Amino acid sequence: MTDPATPLPRTGIGVDVHAYAADDVERPLWLAGLHWPGERGLAGHSDGDVVAHAAADALFSATGLGDLGSNFGTSEPRWSGASGAVLLAEAARRVRGAGFEIGNVAVQVVGNRPRVGTRRAEAETVLGDAAGATVTLTATTTDALGLTGRGDGVAAIATALVVPVSR
Amino acid sequence: MTDPATPLPRTGIGVDVHAYAADDVERPLWLAGLHWPGERGLAGHSDGDVVAHAAADALFSATGLGDLGSNFGTSEPRWSGASGAVLLAEAARRVRGAGFEIGNVAVQVVGNRPRVGTRRAEAETVLGDAAGATVTLTATTTDALGLTGRGDGVAAIATALVVPVSR
Amino acid sequence: MTDPATPLPRTGIGVDVHAYAADDVERPLWLAGLHWPGERGLAGHSDGDVVAHAAADALFSATGLGDLGSNFGTSEPRWSGASGAVLLAEAARRVRGAGFEIGNVAVQVVGNRPRVGTRRAEAETVLGDAAGATVTLTATTTDALGLTGRGDGVAAIATALVVPVSR
Repeated sequence: MTDPATPLPRTGIGVDVHAYAADDVERPLWLAGLHWPGERGLAGHSDGDVVAHAAADALFSATGLGDLGSNFGTSEPRWSGASGAVLLAEAARRVRGAGFEIGNVAVQVVGNRPRVGTRRAEAETVLGDAAGATVTLTATTTDALGLTGRGDGVAAIATALVVPVSR
Repeated sequence: MTDPATPLPRTGIGVDVHAYAADDVERPLWLAGLHWPGERGLAGHSDGDVVAHAAADALFSATGLGDLGSNFGTSEPRWSGASGAVLLAEAARRVRGAGFEIGNVAVQVVGNRPRVGTRRAEAETVLGDAAGATVTLTATTTDALGLTGRGDGVAAIATALVVPVSR
Repeated sequence: MTDPATPLPRTGIGVDVHAYAADDVERPLWLAGLHWPGERGLAGHSDGDVVAHAAADALFSATGLGDLGSNFGTSEPRWSGASGAVLLAEAARRVRGAGFEIGNVAVQVVGNRPRVGTRRAEAETVLGDAAGATVTLTATTTDALGLTGRGDGVAAIATALVVPVSR
């Protein structure tokens, strides 16, 4: 049997999707904790940063602390205007407060624009600083198929690993 | 090197999607092991519980025991009418029988309806009792895009962590 | 606290999607490291093997070594004609070279055709030999919804677990 003094790690999952803002709307793009000048922004009440949101949701998912909606939704107006990176930092703080160490968070962007690989290191630093843990960023496209392939929006999918802190 | 006496954990993944039943079909909604009165049901030969199905598939995926189709498909008529929770319990039984301890299962619902957050604790209890392990439930939407955003159906995505039992 | 001498495992995620080749194009189907005679091929500059690509991307994602594009993209012409299995083997080699042990890779095919369950053991052997680690393969459909349900293409989603090697 596994040593009962060594708690098992837990894994979590988080998906997020946002539509691009309408053509006639001037809106900055925030993605993976970075501002992308000249790129079409994502719609939504938040900054639309699907990467940071998926990462935060994966942390909540791994730990059973609810999700982005229950932690930062309409019942929590304090967070209504917060950036994705701020939400990720607060999610990590809550996860640690509940007694977990964060192993890592891995996020993949699924979409045509922007080309996140051009600023991967920068994004991983910003997101990693927010989470206080290793955050990796990858990207892919869907061969012109589906909602991201048509360019309707951008998706992100994240997984996280946490470990209960033994005392 | 890692101590060879300590087997590494394994992670698994499971996605499931079901369409809503047609407007003129009276069909109860079963999701996350719960009955949702007044909500449109999901189509399919099974009860359509994408949350329980994705959770079971993530366990099979982590352990290499095949998948939902090979374990409970048409060649296994005994399970043809089984609820999602019963299938999840049987999947967990088979995983343990093959020599694995279950760390956790994390499932995210992707869809517009129902609002699973309103019954999260109840669902996590039912699914956790079925799996005999921690099951967490989160939810998101896709900003009106894609098959779930249009309201064609509901998707669920799950990850699981298991550890081979050292003897 | 967790023993600092025992590094935490890391999890990663990888999604890939390819469209089917046009009706009038003769193209073999390569999926999960196997040739599928009589099945419609997937389009793309590569062999279109979404299973092997998602698996490789999950390994890169877990370790922070970039992604499929940055490792094998247009700036790396050496890999331009490589099969999915060859790319997976090279990804595993790079992951180990960066100081990680591979726990496992789990991949789920999401699509209507082919029926991968009929050759699951064969595929798991080919992919596992490529990765030098356990690779499990599962499959599901999306109830005729979305890009895979309409038969536009095939998707794969993978997760991987790696552990930094302590020295």
